[in-house]
Amino acid sequence: MNEIKIFSPATVANVSCGFDVLGFCLDSVGDEMVIRKIEKKGIYISHVEGFDLPYEAEKNVAGVSALAMYEAIDVDFGFEIEIYKNIKPGSGIGSSAASAVGSVFGMNELIGRPFNNTQLTEFAIKGEALASKCEHADNLAPALFGGFTLVKSVAPLKILELPTPSDLCATIIHPQIEIKTSESRGLLPNEVPLNDAITQWANLGSLVHALHTSDFDLMKSALTDVVVEPHRSKLIPLFNEVKEASLNAGALGAGISGSGPSIFTLSKGLEQANIVKEAMQSIYADSDIDFDIHVSKINTKGIKIIN
Amino acid sequence: MNEIKIFSPATVANVSCGFDVLGFCLDSVGDEMVIRKIEKKGIYISHVEGFDLPYEAEKNVAGVSALAMYEAIDVDFGFEIEIYKNIKPGSGIGSSAASAVGSVFGMNELIGRPFNNTQLTEFAIKGEALASKCEHADNLAPALFGGFTLVKSVAPLKILELPTPSDLCATIIHPQIEIKTSESRGLLPNEVPLNDAITQWANLGSLVHALHTSDFDLMKSALTDVVVEPHRSKLIPLFNEVKEASLNAGALGAGISGSGPSIFTLSKGLEQANIVKEAMQSIYADSDIDFDIHVSKINTKGIKIIN
Repeated sequence: MNEIKIFSPATVANVSCGFDVLGFCLDSVGDEMVIRKIEKKGIYISHVEGFDLPYEAEKNVAGVSALAMYEAIDVDFGFEIEIYKNIKPGSGIGSSAASAVGSVFGMNELIGRPFNNTQLTEFAIKGEALASKCEHADNLAPALFGGFTLVKSVAPLKILELPTPSDLCATIIHPQIEIKTSESRGLLPNEVPLNDAITQWANLGSLVHALHTSDFDLMKSALTDVVVEPHRSKLIPLFNEVKEASLNAGALGAGISGSGPSIFTLSKGLEQANIVKEAMQSIYADSDIDFDIHVSKINTKGIKIIN
Repeated sequence: MNEIKIFSPATVANVSCGFDVLGFCLDSVGDEMVIRKIEKKGIYISHVEGFDLPYEAEKNVAGVSALAMYEAIDVDFGFEIEIYKNIKPGSGIGSSAASAVGSVFGMNELIGRPFNNTQLTEFAIKGEALASKCEHADNLAPALFGGFTLVKSVAPLKILELPTPSDLCATIIHPQIEIKTSESRGLLPNEVPLNDAITQWANLGSLVHALHTSDFDLMKSALTDVVVEPHRSKLIPLFNEVKEASLNAGALGAGISGSGPSIFTLSKGLEQANIVKEAMQSIYADSDIDFDIHVSKINTKGIKIIN
């Protein structure tokens, strides 16, 4: 096998109470990439479609993670990468993570899978760092492993695969506004009240338990964020209105996807997720803000080969 | 049935990464109490043994929780409570919680169990508040439910029963020193660095997952406390030495039990817990500090009737 085509999924990081550690994988949104062995040694981005991304490997997220892996293997050939980007950079649903895992997943398949998913995440972190200026894995992990993941620690990298209740679905709305990463970061508090931190870890512990026991009522009460959302939600127009409308429509929870501006909701069942979709889009429909909206099952398989 | 004798177990709260929310129940240490229906209406402490505690119901932890429950029922008789206290007040292994749950558990049995364990916890919180000056349930919940519990929230009270791996054992050492509650509280930070909070909730989420999957390696890496232990451990002489010795001896984790001064460790298997016991007591044996030490299976049943 000299060439592989893959689907690299979008992901939701943070998930309300799981800031910086939790994430889940989407099914219906993602990039496509072709990875090809070539005679010439090195990593080459040969094609980019969908959005304007750099062709120089060392300036391209997929290229940087590929280079990190390429340095760790000893081969007398190189790799060519084609990127068909569907996930808009900066939308908050793991656009850079999809690129970062795509190249290393594809290369690993082409050379007989010497690396496991945690090792692939280590390489992909280098690509992710190019986009987000820090090494984090909360989008990479669900993209590679699928389902819900908890990044226990980055150094050493320890990723836990949490169970995913079978009828859990997500609705994601992406208001087409730009949030500067620096602005979003600037809003994060350096310190948090101890009582808020306790509330947050009680909720995260409860959410992990709820995923293990498929307890949707518990999930509903655990999906809150008292630490980051109150700050970052200010950057997302109509956030509170979308959240309220989706909860009123029956969503289990609603929050900022990654650092935004996308807003995710979780629902029990596809039908409910579509009802929530109507409620969410009705808010932006009344504004002058353009938006995309997706309904997706939780993707429990993660990144996959499509031919 | 007019009289009941119960065993009310000691408990370990906080459990490193689970400050204010997590707790587990001990098997080999606890109080005994006799609860008796009497003709005279009201709640009466008729006997106290072991430690010097007040006989006035409204000044006694067991009496206050009993009064809270008594107000919620409509009966034409009263209750008499005998307390045979084995858990030293102030030792950090849920002495007041054992008293607080004992009276209401016993009364509930004598009147045909109209209340569930969460409702009993609500009554017991009133007794616990007398001792600790705040309403918390992280010792009450494991004493009533057994095993590991997570108090998701106090208002409304929501208690989760977490699974307990069958061969998990605890070793608890109680150095006979007095820590003033006010001093212990004063050491708690009002605010914590966001990064520490993230580490803590990553660990708590991981510990909940580890309990569900009986993953002892994960338990070992999750049983750390970067938020409270660095402050409170200063009040416990030789804490760091005991912790280091027990980890070197093979304990999965070691930390402050409740607000101390007791130190708990968790081990896989009774044999290992006894090896850890040797290591822990060797540290205090070289000092002039008296101590008690207990090895206990995790008590998955909680409080129980003994005749």
